[in-house]
Amino acid sequence: MKFILTNTDTESGARAGIIETAHGRIDTPVFMPVGTAGSVKAIHQRELADDIGAQIILGNTYHLYLRPGQDIISEVGGLHKFNGWDKPILSDSGGYQVYSLAESRKITNEGVTFRSHIDGSGHHFTPEGVIDIQRKIGADIIMAFDECTPYPCTYNYARTSMELTHAWLKKCCERMDETDGYYDYDQALFPIVQGSTFKDLRTKSAEIIASFEREGNAIGGLSVGEPVDEMYEMTELVCQLLPSDKPRYLMGVGTPENILECIALGIDMFDCVMPTRNGRNGMVFTSEGIINIRNEIWKNDFSPIDESLGGYVSTFYSKAYLRHLVMSKEILGAQIASIHNLTFYLWLVKKSREKIIAGQFAIWKNRMVKKLSNKLK
Amino acid sequence: MKFILTNTDTESGARAGIIETAHGRIDTPVFMPVGTAGSVKAIHQRELADDIGAQIILGNTYHLYLRPGQDIISEVGGLHKFNGWDKPILSDSGGYQVYSLAESRKITNEGVTFRSHIDGSGHHFTPEGVIDIQRKIGADIIMAFDECTPYPCTYNYARTSMELTHAWLKKCCERMDETDGYYDYDQALFPIVQGSTFKDLRTKSAEIIASFEREGNAIGGLSVGEPVDEMYEMTELVCQLLPSDKPRYLMGVGTPENILECIALGIDMFDCVMPTRNGRNGMVFTSEGIINIRNEIWKNDFSPIDESLGGYVSTFYSKAYLRHLVMSKEILGAQIASIHNLTFYLWLVKKSREKIIAGQFAIWKNRMVKKLSNKLK
Repeated sequence: MKFILTNTDTESGARAGIIETAHGRIDTPVFMPVGTAGSVKAIHQRELADDIGAQIILGNTYHLYLRPGQDIISEVGGLHKFNGWDKPILSDSGGYQVYSLAESRKITNEGVTFRSHIDGSGHHFTPEGVIDIQRKIGADIIMAFDECTPYPCTYNYARTSMELTHAWLKKCCERMDETDGYYDYDQALFPIVQGSTFKDLRTKSAEIIASFEREGNAIGGLSVGEPVDEMYEMTELVCQLLPSDKPRYLMGVGTPENILECIALGIDMFDCVMPTRNGRNGMVFTSEGIINIRNEIWKNDFSPIDESLGGYVSTFYSKAYLRHLVMSKEILGAQIASIHNLTFYLWLVKKSREKIIAGQFAIWKNRMVKKLSNKLK
Repeated sequence: MKFILTNTDTESGARAGIIETAHGRIDTPVFMPVGTAGSVKAIHQRELADDIGAQIILGNTYHLYLRPGQDIISEVGGLHKFNGWDKPILSDSGGYQVYSLAESRKITNEGVTFRSHIDGSGHHFTPEGVIDIQRKIGADIIMAFDECTPYPCTYNYARTSMELTHAWLKKCCERMDETDGYYDYDQALFPIVQGSTFKDLRTKSAEIIASFEREGNAIGGLSVGEPVDEMYEMTELVCQLLPSDKPRYLMGVGTPENILECIALGIDMFDCVMPTRNGRNGMVFTSEGIINIRNEIWKNDFSPIDESLGGYVSTFYSKAYLRHLVMSKEILGAQIASIHNLTFYLWLVKKSREKIIAGQFAIWKNRMVKKLSNKLK
């Protein structure tokens, strides 16, 4: 994997760059649609590529390990071959899923014992094992196994957890370095900064993570319920400590506003289930603001969902029709909202990139943040 | 509406023809995907047109009347404008839905009082009212309001019900003839033959229905639980009595095998939820037979769903990936199975048409019926 930083904004921390992977090039800043179980929910692979313009998608180690299982995925030659997505893939390590399973998991220094959400069966993840699974998944970018701390948590919990994440990272790196790509291409490992919302812990974690000198670095444990200002403060602090010649990935963030603000702080990569999950529930992001499509005001608004965005879904279907589908629990409603929202998110980061390159990012960002947080009913 | 009968098979009752409507031409035999609430479930409009090759879709008066309501649909200029499907549409009259609502409806000579399945609110359908609603829906083909008899039912019930359907038909025709298309195009009315599985009732009903001399004729009250041989017997009987210069529509049928057999009996038009509903549950129709994709045997079968069928969905996605999606309850699984199954159904009637025109239908049909009823696990 190679990262080329091509542009740096003079008025903010925003950057534009290019990541080159075995499965193709990624222009940054980038938003990565989440394909938890090997499918970005309600969206065909050709729609991801052609309509949404996705450059890279996520897969989740936890979900894919449980179903279909690493044997099936390795037998066909990796996740790219299994789901037919031949552009870059990033695999989440399962750290976040383990955090979500709070009730049914036990963490030790060696790893995590947990119960499957599907059938209650018992499983054990170790840092080394998670690397092995991701080798088999064949993701272009592999995430280190970490513990994502809940918010709020005590200083002591956050420190102990962070130290565990660092200890696990060492094991992940060793396993990465002593193994080759499971298929005939290279895979990169990104470590994850933790430390909750404590400045000194985040500082320490960022320094340690940077010292591993992997191909990119991620920030985890944010967007888990903390006030947005604390999220920005931690992101800013960590971005200043992580090397500028490597991509910075802020995990699980966020609203369109969050994304613009964090691009300004120096983030290059984002993922979030919000455009798809909230879309399925009727929240529609447009270039004029946020729509709750269930609101009666849209019942006879026959204008396209977002004409200015272009693309089949956003210009072909009307707000009234989408509202009808969502109210009627028609699957097509979930499909339209998901494609539209992702099209919007990808448009937003593409536009950001253009503005960074043109040296106009800061002013544009401030105007857009105001517009995009506008609730249109 | 105009029907041109172009070819008649010498060895069976099979026919090929062309229906011309205000929204375009339909080659028969035809299969019509069901778009109950204004959407063929899990399928985009462009997929219906481009991938599946649908020539006409259904909408349901009962569902559309309840949601979004006739006011919304008429305000935008009809269902074609509302859902963006600009090819022909046929609207079911609600007779079948009323039959399905057995617990919460009351039938009188004047019409049906029923409770909404959505909110329990009370509503009243009359033959005249149902024509008015379908005028507003703007379907190219409107169905008469009928009572669909359950199976089994007594001779007396079937006779009384049939007479009610005939009395309602008279009212439907009068309302059709005293009104114009609600928009700037013509709409055709199809009456429906009833009579359960009693030969004399079916004979009488077919004769009466034919005597109304509408633009096409339908057969209802079949595929409701009766043995398949009785369905074929009634269909054959009725086809011989309905005029040959008008399209014959067999409502709600059926399996690929049923469709081939009924084409051989003289049916031109079909609709059924089976390809989409059963697809969502993992039943996959292929040119080699029927697959239960949930079966473990497919878990590492990485071959395309049905290469010989052509088309994106059937050739791009593998059986193993589709199985994974269906087992994981991923929406994309429902999407893929629905598109694939409808592609198969449309392929089947298109192939039938080609064989009829080439004078090779009977032999081909017998071979295909054997192949298609083959359960491949």
